[in-house]
Amino acid sequence: MRGYPEPVERLLAALERLPGIGRRTAGRLAFHLLKAPPEEARELSAAVAAVVETVGCCGTCWHLTDVQPCAICSRHDRQRGCVLVVEQPRDLLGIEGTGLHDGVYHVLMGRIDPLGGVGPSDLTIGALVERVTDPSCNAGGVAVAEVILGLSPTLEGDATALHLAEVLRPTGVRVTRLARGLSAGSSLEHATAAVLADALHGRASVAE
Amino acid sequence: MRGYPEPVERLLAALERLPGIGRRTAGRLAFHLLKAPPEEARELSAAVAAVVETVGCCGTCWHLTDVQPCAICSRHDRQRGCVLVVEQPRDLLGIEGTGLHDGVYHVLMGRIDPLGGVGPSDLTIGALVERVTDPSCNAGGVAVAEVILGLSPTLEGDATALHLAEVLRPTGVRVTRLARGLSAGSSLEHATAAVLADALHGRASVAE
Repeated sequence: MRGYPEPVERLLAALERLPGIGRRTAGRLAFHLLKAPPEEARELSAAVAAVVETVGCCGTCWHLTDVQPCAICSRHDRQRGCVLVVEQPRDLLGIEGTGLHDGVYHVLMGRIDPLGGVGPSDLTIGALVERVTDPSCNAGGVAVAEVILGLSPTLEGDATALHLAEVLRPTGVRVTRLARGLSAGSSLEHATAAVLADALHGRASVAE
Repeated sequence: MRGYPEPVERLLAALERLPGIGRRTAGRLAFHLLKAPPEEARELSAAVAAVVETVGCCGTCWHLTDVQPCAICSRHDRQRGCVLVVEQPRDLLGIEGTGLHDGVYHVLMGRIDPLGGVGPSDLTIGALVERVTDPSCNAGGVAVAEVILGLSPTLEGDATALHLAEVLRPTGVRVTRLARGLSAGSSLEHATAAVLADALHGRASVAE
């Protein structure tokens, strides 16, 4: 059911290339842009063009940035010897939002997912090992003392964490991972067996 | 949880203005554009810019077009005295897809929806009445002999059809509407009471 004017078909094709956007959604977006004030479409067009021209990855931590090194790696008040490894920039922002990590980050740009065709070499694991073994590759030239694995507690996240622990072992760096157990605010009643297993394994002494 | 480089935030804001796109989806789209080959983002940017600069509405039927009048209104082999009224360009394409309408169209650009703040004056109803009363306003200067109401069989569609029938009555033009009843391929078992009522009211003699 094609048949729109060529510029509309071209826009639909470009929108359909985006993840999760089919022909129907592309149509809704295109019509919105045609109905809305032209400034809105012009701003979207300019923003899309600008982001690919100006934004890249930090050469040290692979976070999105428009300066090198990124705003976090270049801060002198961060513990640059403590590197928290996350899968994606969004996870980094979530942790930054807590204000509880005063170290730096390393963004893997994904996780090992054999079914999805993502192997270790598709991630920034090599760069992480380099940072750990050669301080000159780390932010501010500081030697890395601890690597915190901040991967999602999923099958792929766990596999990635396991792989990272293995490739980092020869470096002798301290490798830790985020705690697992009951989510704050959740109810024990609805916790799955896997969550309860984590909670039991990781049980801690109650301070008296 | 803001904190991306400014060009990324700007792109997220532009994407979030689109219908049905929240912060999370905007993030997924933005990261896709950052990861994909830059040509993909450049093409999207150019397509969005081009569509608002080159595509507008046909001055006669309000269908999307990059020429005036549109490709359908300018065809001499269409019955330009028979105008099928639809809510939106997408509906027009659906009917064109059947190849069964050899007349022209009139796109209302929505439907009367008091709760959504859409009144008759927000639609192209005035232009439709003009087409019907003044042949020089219609495609090819042909007098309109029939207006087919092709609105969706919903509350808002029915209200819009009722309003159109009323404003067209003084013109004396023949006004018809698309048939209602059981959808081809559906099962009677799952038909709602409203569908069954339409099917009973509109029952037709079986040719013997």
